[in-house]
Parts: sequence; C-alpha cells; structure tokens
Amino acid sequence: MTQDTISLALAELRDLLGDRLSTGQSVREIHGRDEAYSTPALPDGVAFPESTAEVSAIMKICSAHKIPVVPFGIGTSLEGHVIPIHGGISIDTSRMNKVLEIHESDLDAVVQPGVTRTQLNDNLRATGLMFTVDPGADATLGGMASTRASGTNTVRYGTMRENVLALEVVLPDGRVINTGSRARKSSAGYDLTHLFVGSEGTLGIITELTVRLFGRPDTELSATCAFETIDDAVNTVIMAIQMGLPMARIELLDDVQMKGMNIFNPDLNLPEKPHLFLEFHGSEAGVKEQVDLFESVAEEFGVSGFGWATKLEDRERLWQARHNAYYAGKSLRKGCEGVVTDCCVPISALADCIARTKELIADSGLIAPIVGHVGDGNYHLLILIDPGNADEMARAKQLASDVNRAALSFGGTVTGEHGVGTGKKKYMAEEHGEAYQLMAQLKQSIDPLNIMNPGKLVSVN
Amino acid sequence: MTQDTISLALAELRDLLGDRLSTGQSVREIHGRDEAYSTPALPDGVAFPESTAEVSAIMKICSAHKIPVVPFGIGTSLEGHVIPIHGGISIDTSRMNKVLEIHESDLDAVVQPGVTRTQLNDNLRATGLMFTVDPGADATLGGMASTRASGTNTVRYGTMRENVLALEVVLPDGRVINTGSRARKSSAGYDLTHLFVGSEGTLGIITELTVRLFGRPDTELSATCAFETIDDAVNTVIMAIQMGLPMARIELLDDVQMKGMNIFNPDLNLPEKPHLFLEFHGSEAGVKEQVDLFESVAEEFGVSGFGWATKLEDRERLWQARHNAYYAGKSLRKGCEGVVTDCCVPISALADCIARTKELIADSGLIAPIVGHVGDGNYHLLILIDPGNADEMARAKQLASDVNRAALSFGGTVTGEHGVGTGKKKYMAEEHGEAYQLMAQLKQSIDPLNIMNPGKLVSVN
Repeated sequence: MTQDTISLALAELRDLLGDRLSTGQSVREIHGRDEAYSTPALPDGVAFPESTAEVSAIMKICSAHKIPVVPFGIGTSLEGHVIPIHGGISIDTSRMNKVLEIHESDLDAVVQPGVTRTQLNDNLRATGLMFTVDPGADATLGGMASTRASGTNTVRYGTMRENVLALEVVLPDGRVINTGSRARKSSAGYDLTHLFVGSEGTLGIITELTVRLFGRPDTELSATCAFETIDDAVNTVIMAIQMGLPMARIELLDDVQMKGMNIFNPDLNLPEKPHLFLEFHGSEAGVKEQVDLFESVAEEFGVSGFGWATKLEDRERLWQARHNAYYAGKSLRKGCEGVVTDCCVPISALADCIARTKELIADSGLIAPIVGHVGDGNYHLLILIDPGNADEMARAKQLASDVNRAALSFGGTVTGEHGVGTGKKKYMAEEHGEAYQLMAQLKQSIDPLNIMNPGKLVSVN
Repeated sequence: MTQDTISLALAELRDLLGDRLSTGQSVREIHGRDEAYSTPALPDGVAFPESTAEVSAIMKICSAHKIPVVPFGIGTSLEGHVIPIHGGISIDTSRMNKVLEIHESDLDAVVQPGVTRTQLNDNLRATGLMFTVDPGADATLGGMASTRASGTNTVRYGTMRENVLALEVVLPDGRVINTGSRARKSSAGYDLTHLFVGSEGTLGIITELTVRLFGRPDTELSATCAFETIDDAVNTVIMAIQMGLPMARIELLDDVQMKGMNIFNPDLNLPEKPHLFLEFHGSEAGVKEQVDLFESVAEEFGVSGFGWATKLEDRERLWQARHNAYYAGKSLRKGCEGVVTDCCVPISALADCIARTKELIADSGLIAPIVGHVGDGNYHLLILIDPGNADEMARAKQLASDVNRAALSFGGTVTGEHGVGTGKKKYMAEEHGEAYQLMAQLKQSIDPLNIMNPGKLVSVN
C-alpha cells in the first residue's frame, strides 16, 4: 500500500462521502486506540457512512485499492480490535444508529450496528421488553456482535451468540448478504450468522442486526452477600448452577476488588471480603422460591449475611457499581494503568482455576483484583501497573499469560468475552490446534485480499 | 470417477477396515435410502469405522482418489441427506456409539456420533440429568447435529444449535479438528462449532460431540386441550409465548391429524378438533403458576377442556403418540405414502401462514395433516399420496412447494428442522440470495475436491 494508492482511495471516498470522510488528526487519533493498554496506530482516514449502500461503496473502493478497513463502533474494545495496525480506513458506524423495527409479538428488534445497548433499551421502555446482553461499557451492538460479547446476565439470557438471530453483512468485495430470517429456528443451510458473530470485523462489516428480546420479569430482586473465602463463594456458585437455579445474575468480586469498590463508591460500604452480587428474575412466588434455595446453599458455605435491593434505584446503583468495577479496581493504586484479561473454564474447574490465579497474582507481586461472571465460569483480572515502569509491565503481561494458560490447562478458553484482537492471537494455535488453520482458510476464502481488519484474530499471508 | 478408481479405493479401504468395509448388495441398499420419499441411490461401499483415526484414514483414501463420502447415522433423514447420489463410500457411524464422558457438574456429555438420543438419555438415568433435543425418530446425535435437528421441547431448551457445545470433526483431507472447549462461552475466534452444525456432512464428518444437558425438573405435567378452530389454538400459543410462559412443550395437531391419532392410538380417543399437546416443567409451585396462566389464556380462545397427565407412564404414552404422528397421519389413507415438508415463520405470522396452508391443502384436493412445534413457529405437513399415482405425486410436490414459498413470503424459512439435503436445494437461492453464494464459497474452501456429501445443500462446480 503506497501513499499514492491511499491518496487515490481517499479522493474516491471523499467523492462518495464528502465531509463524512475525515482525515483530521484528532478524529484519526480517536479511531487509533481502544480502552485497553494497546499500542495506538492511526487510520489514514475515517469514514462515517449512513447506509448499507454507502458501506458497500466504501468496501468496493477499498478492495479496488487493497486498502485495509477497520470497523469501529464506540471504541471500548479491550484487545486492540479497532486499532488500524496497518493503517487504512476506519469505518465508524456512529451515524448508523437507528432502531429500525421492534417486533413486540416476536420478541425481536432490528437495529443498525451503531445502536448502543442502553439506546436500544431506552427505545424498548414502553414495551415491557428488554435487550439483555450487558458488557461493562455501553458498547454498540455491531461491536458486541463482532466480539461475541456477553455480560452479567449471560448465565440466564445468553451471550451475543444466543441473542443475534440474523445479520446483514457487507462482504470485503462490497456484496451485501443477509444471514438469516426472523424465524426462531432454521435448518436451511450453513449458519452464517454465527460465523460473523465473533469474527471481529475480519470477514465483513455488520450493517444490520436482528436481536432477541425478553419480556421484563414481574419481579426483580438484587442482593449482595459476603463469604470468608473465595472458595466458599465459588462453591456456592457451582452448587447453585448445578441445582439449575435460574439466576439472572451471579457475579463474583474478590476481597481486593471489594476494597476498590468501597473507595470508588463511598455509599457502598461493604465488608472487604469475597462477595457475590446476585439478581433473581421471575414471578413474585418464583423469585421467593429461588431466594430460599439460594440462601440454603450459601449458608452451607458460611455466607455472612445478605444485603437486599428491591427498589429500582437501589438495584440500578448496585449494578452501576458492578459495571464500574474497572474504575473501582483502578482506584486501588493512584495513577496506575490497568492491564485487563479474561478467561473462562468449565464450572467444575472454576474454584481450582481461581485458586491457581490467586497464587500467580501473589507470585507476580502485583495488585490484581478478580471480578467474574462466574455463573458462566468466566472471570476477569485487572492488573494494576505503573505505566512508566517497564518491569511492572513485563510482569503484568507474564501474569496475564500465565492465567490464560492456566485456563487452557483446566479445559477452558483464553477469552470468555473480550475477544482475540491482537492481544490474544498468541494463544490461538495453542487453544485451537489444527482448527486455527481452518479459521485462516475461511478468512482467505471470504477476504482473499486480507483487507478486513488485517492482523486481528487470524494470521494469513 | 472411474470403476478403476473405485476398485483401487475399495481395496485400500479393505486393507484398513477388513470386514468393516461392506460391498454387499443388501448393506448398500440400506445405505441408499432415507425415511422420506427420496429416490434411492447406492453407495459403492459402506465403511464401519470404530475410531476417529479410522475416519481420518478413510477420508485420506477417498480424497486421494476423489471418491464421494456420505456420512450415515441411522438413516432417518427426510430430505435425502444420506443418499449417495454420486455413489462413493457411505460412512456408517453405528460402531462409534459410545458415551465417552458425562460431566454432571458441568451439565454436559461427550459422545461419539453414533449414539442415539434415547441411548444418551438411558445413560443419564442415574444422574438426574437429561438431553432434551427430540426429533420424532431415535436419530443419532451426529445426524441430529448435521441437520440442526430440533423437536418438541425446543421452545424451552433449544435446538442442536444451542445444545452442541463443541465438536471433533474430520475434514475432507483427513485433518482432525476440535471446534471448541467445554467452557460455556468463548470469544476466542470463529465459531466453527456452528459452522458444522447444520452443514449436513458437506464440510466434514463429526466424530465426537460435546452436548449440553439439563437437570430434570422436580415436576413435569403434560396436558392435551382442544379448540374449535385452528386459529384459536394458534392464537393461544402466540399469546402464551408473548407472555413469556416457559413451557417445555407446546405442540399443535390439526383436526385432520387428530383423526389419524385416534385411528393409530385406539386408547387415545380424543375429540377430532385442533389440539395442543402441552408440557410444563418446574418446581411444584412453578408448574401450578404456569398452568393457571396458560388456562386463563386458553379460555380466552374458547378451549374446550383439558386432559391432564401427571404419571410418568401417562406422559410417556402421550409423547410417544405425538412422536408417532407420522405413522398416525399415514393411517388416514390405506396404502399411502407420505410426502413430508416443514417450514418455520416468525410467531406473529404463524396464524396467517397456517391459514394460507389450509387453503393450499384444500386447493390441492389431497389429505395433509398439520403437526407443529408451534412455540417456535415451526410446523410440518404430511401429504398423503398413492405412490403409484403420478398426478398425486406432482400435486403433492406442488403443494409442498407452495407451502414453503408461503413461509418465505411471511418472513420465514423453508425448513425449521428437517434440513436441505437434495429436497430443498431449489429454495436456497430464493431464501438466502447472495448469501447462498457465500455458502458455496465456504464449501469450496473446506472441500475443494467436492467429495463430502456432494450434491447436498449447496451446488459447486
């Protein structure tokens, strides 16, 4: 890719988009970084399309000139997905942010990729329906589908894998495809929807999503409860899952994280012990039944009392605190940066894998709170480092790496919900073996020029 | 493919498998047909491998000689999937029928592809767990994954799409891959599991499956209820789904089907009106709550009384009768053959699409009972014809085609659970548009010699 090629492509894109192609330094900088500690890299230009037809036209120009294209939602990636490491065009979907259809009878909605999860839920307010997937950030649905995102209530309602019913996708050569219908199931051919969900913009750009909605439960009840040891908390989770308790949320926060929570949320004032944050959904009687069962399990593991939240504002405050866990964790060390990683293991291995993680943290000499969607076997590590200290950075990377390999050794995966991007490519061959070559083969088939988010997830020639 | 090539390949396969390669006429005939009205075609040989390594070795031989390979489970396909229309080798998985691991704590099991759904459930009897996907036939799990099968309790527990967690697959060139782990979620790369689920043996052979299990509910209650019109029955279903009632089963049988049910099951003796067959799962209190809600909905649509089944043997008799709906339907006309089709639409379109189907049946002058997993918007037509009557056959095919196109016109899919095979290829371009070309592209990438179940699902050069 020469400077001439780029200039030619930019000129054609300018003809197509006018002011909605930006080559200004500040706009390029916004599109050159994510929310993690990834090395920034600037795109040559940022396109702000307003329609599928425009995305298709952009792709035709970029494929004609073999210019890299990086889809950009709102920039909350944690593994470098949106960083244009080979330059090219960042396609910002923020102007494709319409909720197109809400089908109350079918419990689904059709949205453009730039719609955020809270925006969709605001649009649903009058319907009694909800969109459930809730990563910490208020990410776009296009981005969430691309990283196969999940969140706190996946244990009950599923990840983006279960909640995306169909997609419209622009392929690298500009072709527009639809990957499914609004029928709830189909045996009509290859499952292209799931091929694109989690493909991190390396196979095409999502321009429309049909997502699943759920009815709001009659009763929602939240709670916090503390345990003497992290093992007790985790074993409570394991038993509750095994009993088939249909909990809506069951989140672990370790003692270190709780210290940060109390600093960041002065009103919270919870004991600095391992906690579970819980939510129960159902009818009034159904929730009562769940709570009784859960309490009896937790008591077996020495739970030291519950804090209950029934009122909407109390529940929202609690879950806002949980969603701000990243910032709460960072408040444990002044001026620090956070190195974040996540992994996921079979639930039977969760207690052992977390115990191993705690040992690895102790060995590293670093502070690293643990927070997890433990009902899925998924947890996060936030490793706090002094950004100017190369030794700490090296130790943090080693720790993240050791934790990810521990997850593999327990039959798990190196990322439950953050994705691969550039950050986790190094583990892919180890996790997938020969299957990783098949992924590269698929990438080459769909994107033979390797222009779609090149360098992420898979390596091709 | 010349006769010489085949003889060479058969000789090499004989060296590998000994007696477990069969070229006898009767064995080839068993592997040359399915359960539907598809034209038979014989394989040149039938291989009975006992391990993944043997399947890999078979694939290497067949790819070296460019011989077609057709995976075979138990032969209950309804769209010609298992018929070797281009000859070659049928790989029968019946000797790979071991339940390898049951992980009670993780609610999953690892099985070989020849295990049938009832065999797995027999193996689970002591655990309190169940495998839920239940197509009418006692199909193999390999076959069920390959057609993305579902059944009567999908509305609560999902199809094979939701219930296959990971696969081991032998690719056309003999490479063995694993498509996932036992972790409940992952964002680590392309979703290969879902690419192979529903791919009908056109991309590789499934040699191992990790499937999801559920805890058996404390209380299971089954019921039948009759309505004056099919519209009332369908509207009851629609409202129950919209209210979020977590029913385990909600099945429609129209008046014509009920007549057949009474002939085939003399003990059943139900009114010959449209019926719903229901099942509720939960705690005792939870089931009572669901039943009360359901009754209030059904009463709005003029339900004419319920028949309840609480005892295990009564429930089993009821669902066995439902699973035998195909044979019951055929008992409506002596000596007839059944032409079967299925389709699936968004639930909001279900009443209209079924009404249109009833009109089309009337226009055809044929008898065609309707049975459906209507909680998913999915229903089946069993068109009864005199196998010697070419005109009836033509009218049956036209009717099936009209019903499938009606489903497309209502935003649905031409098959909810039977698959494409050869029978439904003709609708694929219409249903998928440009996406159907992408499917062919993927097929060419993974199976460049087009030896995996050639002629099914997609067309390549």
